[in-house]
Amino acid sequence: MDIKILLDEYNATRSRTMELIEPLLEEDCCVQSLPEASPVKWHLGHAAWFFEAFVLQHYETAFQPFQQEFLTMFSSYNSSNVPHPDPKRGLFTRPSLKATREYCHNIDERMTNLSHQVTADEMLQMIITLGIHHELQHQELMLTDLKHLLSQNPLNPIYQPKIDLRATDSSISAPLKWHSFDAGIIEIGYEGEGFSYDNESPRHKQYLYPYQLASRLVTNGEYLQFIEDNGYDNPCFWFSEGWNWIKSTHCHHPLYWRHEAGAWKEFTLHGLVPLNLNLPVIHISYYEASAFAQWRGARLPTEAEWENTASLQKIAGDFADNNYFHPRHTAIGESVKINALYGSAWEWTQSSYSPYPGYNPKKSNSNKPKSDIWDVAVGEYNSESMVNQYVLRGGSCITPRKRIRPSMRNFFPAETRWQFSGIRLARNET
Amino acid sequence: MDIKILLDEYNATRSRTMELIEPLLEEDCCVQSLPEASPVKWHLGHAAWFFEAFVLQHYETAFQPFQQEFLTMFSSYNSSNVPHPDPKRGLFTRPSLKATREYCHNIDERMTNLSHQVTADEMLQMIITLGIHHELQHQELMLTDLKHLLSQNPLNPIYQPKIDLRATDSSISAPLKWHSFDAGIIEIGYEGEGFSYDNESPRHKQYLYPYQLASRLVTNGEYLQFIEDNGYDNPCFWFSEGWNWIKSTHCHHPLYWRHEAGAWKEFTLHGLVPLNLNLPVIHISYYEASAFAQWRGARLPTEAEWENTASLQKIAGDFADNNYFHPRHTAIGESVKINALYGSAWEWTQSSYSPYPGYNPKKSNSNKPKSDIWDVAVGEYNSESMVNQYVLRGGSCITPRKRIRPSMRNFFPAETRWQFSGIRLARNET
Amino acid sequence: MDIKILLDEYNATRSRTMELIEPLLEEDCCVQSLPEASPVKWHLGHAAWFFEAFVLQHYETAFQPFQQEFLTMFSSYNSSNVPHPDPKRGLFTRPSLKATREYCHNIDERMTNLSHQVTADEMLQMIITLGIHHELQHQELMLTDLKHLLSQNPLNPIYQPKIDLRATDSSISAPLKWHSFDAGIIEIGYEGEGFSYDNESPRHKQYLYPYQLASRLVTNGEYLQFIEDNGYDNPCFWFSEGWNWIKSTHCHHPLYWRHEAGAWKEFTLHGLVPLNLNLPVIHISYYEASAFAQWRGARLPTEAEWENTASLQKIAGDFADNNYFHPRHTAIGESVKINALYGSAWEWTQSSYSPYPGYNPKKSNSNKPKSDIWDVAVGEYNSESMVNQYVLRGGSCITPRKRIRPSMRNFFPAETRWQFSGIRLARNET
Amino acid sequence: MDIKILLDEYNATRSRTMELIEPLLEEDCCVQSLPEASPVKWHLGHAAWFFEAFVLQHYETAFQPFQQEFLTMFSSYNSSNVPHPDPKRGLFTRPSLKATREYCHNIDERMTNLSHQVTADEMLQMIITLGIHHELQHQELMLTDLKHLLSQNPLNPIYQPKIDLRATDSSISAPLKWHSFDAGIIEIGYEGEGFSYDNESPRHKQYLYPYQLASRLVTNGEYLQFIEDNGYDNPCFWFSEGWNWIKSTHCHHPLYWRHEAGAWKEFTLHGLVPLNLNLPVIHISYYEASAFAQWRGARLPTEAEWENTASLQKIAGDFADNNYFHPRHTAIGESVKINALYGSAWEWTQSSYSPYPGYNPKKSNSNKPKSDIWDVAVGEYNSESMVNQYVLRGGSCITPRKRIRPSMRNFFPAETRWQFSGIRLARNET
Repeated sequence: MDIKILLDEYNATRSRTMELIEPLLEEDCCVQSLPEASPVKWHLGHAAWFFEAFVLQHYETAFQPFQQEFLTMFSSYNSSNVPHPDPKRGLFTRPSLKATREYCHNIDERMTNLSHQVTADEMLQMIITLGIHHELQHQELMLTDLKHLLSQNPLNPIYQPKIDLRATDSSISAPLKWHSFDAGIIEIGYEGEGFSYDNESPRHKQYLYPYQLASRLVTNGEYLQFIEDNGYDNPCFWFSEGWNWIKSTHCHHPLYWRHEAGAWKEFTLHGLVPLNLNLPVIHISYYEASAFAQWRGARLPTEAEWENTASLQKIAGDFADNNYFHPRHTAIGESVKINALYGSAWEWTQSSYSPYPGYNPKKSNSNKPKSDIWDVAVGEYNSESMVNQYVLRGGSCITPRKRIRPSMRNFFPAETRWQFSGIRLARNET
Repeated sequence: MDIKILLDEYNATRSRTMELIEPLLEEDCCVQSLPEASPVKWHLGHAAWFFEAFVLQHYETAFQPFQQEFLTMFSSYNSSNVPHPDPKRGLFTRPSLKATREYCHNIDERMTNLSHQVTADEMLQMIITLGIHHELQHQELMLTDLKHLLSQNPLNPIYQPKIDLRATDSSISAPLKWHSFDAGIIEIGYEGEGFSYDNESPRHKQYLYPYQLASRLVTNGEYLQFIEDNGYDNPCFWFSEGWNWIKSTHCHHPLYWRHEAGAWKEFTLHGLVPLNLNLPVIHISYYEASAFAQWRGARLPTEAEWENTASLQKIAGDFADNNYFHPRHTAIGESVKINALYGSAWEWTQSSYSPYPGYNPKKSNSNKPKSDIWDVAVGEYNSESMVNQYVLRGGSCITPRKRIRPSMRNFFPAETRWQFSGIRLARNET
Repeated sequence: MDIKILLDEYNATRSRTMELIEPLLEEDCCVQSLPEASPVKWHLGHAAWFFEAFVLQHYETAFQPFQQEFLTMFSSYNSSNVPHPDPKRGLFTRPSLKATREYCHNIDERMTNLSHQVTADEMLQMIITLGIHHELQHQELMLTDLKHLLSQNPLNPIYQPKIDLRATDSSISAPLKWHSFDAGIIEIGYEGEGFSYDNESPRHKQYLYPYQLASRLVTNGEYLQFIEDNGYDNPCFWFSEGWNWIKSTHCHHPLYWRHEAGAWKEFTLHGLVPLNLNLPVIHISYYEASAFAQWRGARLPTEAEWENTASLQKIAGDFADNNYFHPRHTAIGESVKINALYGSAWEWTQSSYSPYPGYNPKKSNSNKPKSDIWDVAVGEYNSESMVNQYVLRGGSCITPRKRIRPSMRNFFPAETRWQFSGIRLARNET
Repeated sequence: MDIKILLDEYNATRSRTMELIEPLLEEDCCVQSLPEASPVKWHLGHAAWFFEAFVLQHYETAFQPFQQEFLTMFSSYNSSNVPHPDPKRGLFTRPSLKATREYCHNIDERMTNLSHQVTADEMLQMIITLGIHHELQHQELMLTDLKHLLSQNPLNPIYQPKIDLRATDSSISAPLKWHSFDAGIIEIGYEGEGFSYDNESPRHKQYLYPYQLASRLVTNGEYLQFIEDNGYDNPCFWFSEGWNWIKSTHCHHPLYWRHEAGAWKEFTLHGLVPLNLNLPVIHISYYEASAFAQWRGARLPTEAEWENTASLQKIAGDFADNNYFHPRHTAIGESVKINALYGSAWEWTQSSYSPYPGYNPKKSNSNKPKSDIWDVAVGEYNSESMVNQYVLRGGSCITPRKRIRPSMRNFFPAETRWQFSGIRLARNET
């Protein structure tokens, strides 16, 4: 690929990042409200850092860091070289948002200069492509983390004013239907020439039993029935560990639901609004998703079942690109049998996040050139997380469309709720 | 089956339980040294409780509890009816060991009387059979929990004096070899008329890629090399979560290893002995098993790979029945290609503990009669634990032989070390 | 003093210790139910250890320890030589109770032999006297810790069966009266030839303002009024720290009160009995004592006020010597104005535990000979605890009479409840 | 007093507050780096809130809150009406710093209007005076909390650039001398017509034994000797609780000291500078102050000793008013015997924070009018903290001069280190 084209993509991605933070105050960009979240400013600096650390440092002649400390402050690796979110990132009031923007601008200029000087080898193309996808991921995390931060404020700040989220005619959720899929040996995993993470490879066979998937996501209304049926008070729906989680956290509803003055409301990036019963339930843990499914006499799909079905459908859905940061419908893509497989809400699967057969951790995923840069750069996406996490599929309303492939695997610990996670039901074909 | 035969099995099991606690003091039987362990005395009362609560209470005419409080004190269900180990069981100094033995004796007598009075329906047979397997499980847990308790004592108490555990000619471990197994659709899971837990069903197909299994378990000597190669100090071998586990627990060797006066020793149920480098390493977490495999350039087997291979072999190995409560050899069953698949040490697999396709939680596993008794009685073995746990296979040197089938699934959280857990390496056929 | 007389006292003390554990099972003596408590068996071994470590080790010719490990297992000093209760003492199932009794017997014999062989120097006399008082203290702690242990058991075990603790005519509590005491310079602290701890010295002057003390201890009935007046729900009665303590512990009544089937009961060493409203309230924290006083429009006394008044009275009260291990009256010593200043319940004072003016930590308290033995032996009683603890005075129903002097200072952290602690009200003379 | 004069004082105080935050970024003002600290922006809004809640709400005709939510967001009382720092204040990114300034400006205008309309009754004067002292206190806390926040940043931000803090001739510390003070009945506590907090009253008698105070504060150099003498590794200098504190926190030097590249440095509000051995040691806990004193064969003074001596001296010292936010000398006020009793560093006393004899919590301290407003307004300064805290005296280099009186009592828990706390040694006259 021509490096000029790649740089256009780089610039478009960076512009979008800047657009997303436009409505925010300096203060909004600095604070961290969860140990596992990061401040918006850190996401911004970190996205630029990727290119300084993995591109400029290796390809720029006479490389000089913009500021020496930024190479560690904006790194996602701790002192032991293990990737992890740092609960102290929110304490970095300096560099200011202004100074962090200047850092980004500097990196942009140097990336442009670089594109005039070097001939893109395959490794350079791979790293820049990875950096772009890395930034797309952080665009999503920015909004995810910001939503949690704003939700902590009694003033209920609005990220972007929007039209009313209450039910309109078009958003009345259709009755849930079940669609059947056949048994047999199927294949999942990425194959092709485009970008993918190493955890999507290799493409491999699995044996599937006949299964059914629900035609749409579980709605707030259905979830409310579960609550009103004392779902949170009945241990028979829950894993023992999930039951202990309820007892210690006192969770009794999705993360951003609030019961005020006798009515349910939901905090969104468009403000605090009445709970719309027809929209998909989001911000629930794996424990809650599983318990709901158990209550409904169903189960969560496996990731193989999900991907097998998703591979048959066109990727269409509520993504971040339309600048609406909350699910809008349960009926996306009316022409397909299974609505909203993509976008709207990340769908918990029952699959533990584990390596595919033949997966080779810490290595690139195909016949591409290998190098130390690559190994470090992709370290963030490989095997270190492959214990005690569960796979989510399909992207959400704050996911950039470009991030999503049928084979894309997202993963979080079972108690995670601040992600835009929802429920797709499955069951055995009987 | 004739209920008389079943009662013989009941009596034999109870005798064995009593034999196992013979060497212990009242004090040894009362104390709990870990929240997830139970005192020996509780295991004893709980084994008897099973028959009082699930057999006598339903089949005895004019049932009267031996002592009302025992129905809750010896139950494994907490007030919310969720099974869980109770960290306060060790505070129950009453009933005394003597009184608990009397409880068992009383239950034995009533079980004998019952066998003269009732005709065994299928449900009664199933429940008694389940109770016997339940007691076998608790025989194993008794020894597991006792070992931890005794290990906390500066006097290094000996449960059973034994001959020296140091290397003898016969126990020199053979060189590790790799044996290959073919790809294709295989079947795993229990099928047959005998006893099995519901989590082993239904028998089902899986697609396997060609794989290799190590000819024997990893030895203490090999694990020591990992330690001496700074395996615990190098994050690249560890899951992020495992690395955090090291940082918070400061683990740097298997649970019962000690470095004293320049030499490695190992605490065993036969006393504190010099570490035998030729014996299998035991008492390691899933994190440690995975890190060792990564360091060796290998991986852990999946449970499907393990069972596929194990199904081909005769069940033979170091089990508790021979009254030797530590692994003795790495070369069990010289005639087989894969040594010590059964007994010696529970083998961590890389498989997250999850339901088999078509698994129906809270139900018996076949065409057997269903009832509420059964549903409650087997509640302990079903789906409540199917999150954030990993499967172990094959049994250990303290497992009663009768507990083990090729399809038997044991499961524990990744940080668990007080079980007799070891490492079987696997790798992809290249 | 003749060493023979001292040995008689030694033997009498040891006999009493043995008498106190007579009703107990091996199991009762082994288990530890609180990190800050110790098992009865440990108290027993520790009392003997004192004489082995501080007397025999220094005065016996050709000293050989009874068992080398006991010198550390029964020591109250941890590896850093700092005194502290060890939350793992309850894990020592060995030595057995029987073996621990043999240890005591051995020490007794060696103490007798020693008394025949050595001429008592002043230091030897001091150490033996200290050891006897040390054992008296542990007699009290034994019962204190045992009560907590037994209280954890659903069987409500009875340490010693006794007559009914319900109100009898003689135990109706008298109306609370206030007695006034003058202002001026007074003196507190120990002075004399008898035994005292170093924290009681030197005797010194303090300036007191006129004050009043309540004629009797606060009763269960009065405390119940505080509860029924929502005392635990009203922050204005509580220190901020005490309020946080309520929020985190959910305490809403004294430690051993229980509300069962609409009635209040109290767990005692004589069994679970109906709450007697006329008896003194016990087992409350400093937070609760202070909040009750605030609610009553009064305050707790300072230790100087308490001692100033107590010095004027004969020491008489409900002590452990009468083998009744619960307060029996509020009107002890009818002839005195202030009832039950001694015995019945330790009385929280508002005084932080701090050194008296001129106090010299780590030194004996008078003109007695000084040595390293002494400094280590008394280390348990001196300055290491003089931060964040509060002084209690007067002894309780489980305190041996010989422990108590007007100047005796007991001290515990503000949240402590398992001691037999109660409330004496004070107020300013207006 | 004329309300116009009072308003001048109000305006001067507010101007100073604004001056102090001038060098800061929006981000610096928003973040909270300790649960017990507050963001600068919160301090600002809280200072204004005091006047809105306690003055305008009661005296303004047709009172309308500036913004309803501010009455709770900027309150120091939690939902249970108990004063406490809120660890979530740092999550309030809104109102912005700009909006918070506007809030202050609005309050200033309304206070001015009010002063033209009402005739100041005594209560109004008292509340405004209290509000001014309240704001002075928060000026100090702002700098205290800010220092901790900036210290967390790898960029070592400088609050105010200053001249070098290294030793100059004039700052070489004088040899420590001891000055003696007589025994007898003395009086401490506030008496007079000026402002004081209720905890300083009533003035009362105490009996003092002869004592000595050190001529100057302990220096960094002396404290370094303690460290180099393994003071942090020797339990004999420490309270048991202090020793446990070391073990759990791994503290081995004052809070803002750093050992980098073989040299000691100190983080200050004027940047990271080489440790000046001649300046007073600051930012140490009560545990450390006590251990140092023990190591030196001395002790901490009681608050009565401190006040008795301080009352004799003119109040002069390093205060915040000179815009230098770090101690500059050990020899302040050359003409006095005891240097730097005031300013430089808050001096830990050995006195537990407790009520003075005759203290009446929740009441004003003299014959002033009493009312509900007053009781709530001064709730922050009275008895709720009188458990498990220790008294500090004399003010520090960041304390406004107007806050300090001889009788002024500051108080913090023993483990507190982020305050500007130092050591004045005392000992008994021998």
